Amino acid sequence: MPIAPPATIGAPLAAVDTPALLIDLDAFERNLKRMADFARGAGVRLRPHAKTHKSPDIAARQVALGAVGVCCQKVSEAEVMVAGGIGDMLVSNEVAGAAKLARLAALAAKARIAVCTDDIDNVAEIEAAAAKAGTTIDVLVEIDVGGRRCGVAPGAPAVRIAERVASSRHLRFSGLQAYHGSAQHVREAGERRQQIARAIELVQETLRGLEATGLSAATVGGGGTGTYENEAASRVYNELQTGSYIFMDADYARNKRADGGPFDAYEHALFVNATVMSAPVPERAILDAGLKALAVDSGMPAPWKLPGALYHRPSDEHGILDLSASQVKPKRGDKVLLVPGHCDPTVNLHDWYVGIRGLGGEGARVECLWPVAARGALF
Amino acid sequence: MPIAPPATIGAPLAAVDTPALLIDLDAFERNLKRMADFARGAGVRLRPHAKTHKSPDIAARQVALGAVGVCCQKVSEAEVMVAGGIGDMLVSNEVAGAAKLARLAALAAKARIAVCTDDIDNVAEIEAAAAKAGTTIDVLVEIDVGGRRCGVAPGAPAVRIAERVASSRHLRFSGLQAYHGSAQHVREAGERRQQIARAIELVQETLRGLEATGLSAATVGGGGTGTYENEAASRVYNELQTGSYIFMDADYARNKRADGGPFDAYEHALFVNATVMSAPVPERAILDAGLKALAVDSGMPAPWKLPGALYHRPSDEHGILDLSASQVKPKRGDKVLLVPGHCDPTVNLHDWYVGIRGLGGEGARVECLWPVAARGALF
Repeated sequence: MPIAPPATIGAPLAAVDTPALLIDLDAFERNLKRMADFARGAGVRLRPHAKTHKSPDIAARQVALGAVGVCCQKVSEAEVMVAGGIGDMLVSNEVAGAAKLARLAALAAKARIAVCTDDIDNVAEIEAAAAKAGTTIDVLVEIDVGGRRCGVAPGAPAVRIAERVASSRHLRFSGLQAYHGSAQHVREAGERRQQIARAIELVQETLRGLEATGLSAATVGGGGTGTYENEAASRVYNELQTGSYIFMDADYARNKRADGGPFDAYEHALFVNATVMSAPVPERAILDAGLKALAVDSGMPAPWKLPGALYHRPSDEHGILDLSASQVKPKRGDKVLLVPGHCDPTVNLHDWYVGIRGLGGEGARVECLWPVAARGALF
Repeated sequence: MPIAPPATIGAPLAAVDTPALLIDLDAFERNLKRMADFARGAGVRLRPHAKTHKSPDIAARQVALGAVGVCCQKVSEAEVMVAGGIGDMLVSNEVAGAAKLARLAALAAKARIAVCTDDIDNVAEIEAAAAKAGTTIDVLVEIDVGGRRCGVAPGAPAVRIAERVASSRHLRFSGLQAYHGSAQHVREAGERRQQIARAIELVQETLRGLEATGLSAATVGGGGTGTYENEAASRVYNELQTGSYIFMDADYARNKRADGGPFDAYEHALFVNATVMSAPVPERAILDAGLKALAVDSGMPAPWKLPGALYHRPSDEHGILDLSASQVKPKRGDKVLLVPGHCDPTVNLHDWYVGIRGLGGEGARVECLWPVAARGALF
């Protein structure tokens, strides 16, 4: 029994069932264009991360504005993107195991597929899968540039893996994956810049090692919404992998610009629409959106345009608004917009995007319904 | 494109793709029986909460062991349960809005449906929906017994709502909802007992008020996995709504018994199976299960039978095992079982249960695949 969409196209916002995942299409389109323009201006390629949206509809819009393709984090995400018509995918992650790699190799018959590796035995696994499928897979060697997650050590260890890739008939060595995940949410711009400066040094060291063995990296990929300006200015990174800029979550809004102001280059364009289902006392409104409608790993969602209201104490299907410091006291049946603390895992809880045109105005209407097609694509 | 199951029936555990949601069927069946036996022995009805499992397959097993029906938290969950053959549902929550109430009233033509209310205007809405659908809905008045979430004040305010329900031709007043959510995870047994003792007083006060108006409460419902023994012993509560006992998450395992020992009446029966996709250094293994495979709102998942290993720093699709204090150092390609910090929202991330018989033994095999049929049923 698939979950039906919570709205119909053309309906007024007030008719959307809750909890629902809304896109403010006006803000979203401005965000898309801003990043596309930035990449073009900086002379770097843009390969946005589809783990944020899990939607071929959105990926197609990014490609239409100049993106070279998208990143995925899982083989199953890439499968959904290929089925949705996207032609160029980087699985920006390690893939372990013959079963998953067989699917990845099969996908390479339908689209350009690249994958990351940080292990020489893993290269042999990818090679075997590609050989069996009769396809060619592009491989990026992932180096640890400070995030202490996946990634081989930069320099000689990375070069050894690159040589192994380059020696394979079924693989193409296409460069380095040098994403610095933990730098993205560092609050101070200067500190983010320093962390990426160190990443750049590690990339350069590895590039010198590659050059010494006669290899070149066509792609050096990295850069999230928190740091991409630094990678773009490096003249070393040539492909940005930003994802969250399309929606801007509450946590990214806590980052600071170089001048100390809030990081506001992108607008909040994703909301969870919730209904007050109970308001036993005026200072407490209970919303129908809890842990199953909103991810709270990066902090609570922020009530939108309700100064003083605080979302707290979420349980599975309840969220509590503390209204003691809010002038406005939403009543039972009223609707409230919430800015997710972390967009990516919030999106993954929903089956549908409800695209709203004119959000905030009188005539706000449902313009489109996009399935979160790769929701639950964990494999 | 629906998500395919990560396993086939009869396959060995090693062939299950990851990340996958595993049920240890042996432990699960012992848990089911233990709670059913407890309720029978205590002379109270058992109406387990289906928000934990979202599965008619599991609900049917609970009913087969004597449960009178199940609780749901959302109308759409109840719809899935009715479609799956379950005949008696309490939506243990407030339902706001004509569209949702119309669906609830329609459902009452197919199954016995009860719902909670804490507001007199809400009673009129439920009544209107039932009248329009030509059905009868059972209504419980929810009172706030200390959880400060939904629920009208006990005593006279609750009685007024009960009278309004009882006066309706389309509604049946069937009792009180008196669930104390925030008491469930209080660590000390004595403190949990005190909180429920206060809840019992508030129920009694309300029952006296009802009696004075000639009303009686056929059902007094409440009791979660943390406190149900207290409600069962009260001679006031007569219907338990425990959910988590079937799976036992890592957070409930931090509760203490009255003698100070760990709350271990129920066994961990739910696991997320993950693969090490990268192990750049021996003390760090990166798992393919992150925020999109595991809910972390109640703490990190606990690695199973890996003493000293610590799961930390999850990102969307990565979880990091710190192995510096672990004797065993899982390598790339190895699999690890994780006990979720909080089962309910973890289950909601997956499309399939993989039921394993003989988990922990050599011959562990996939015995069943159950869809998480109400996953994403938010409405």
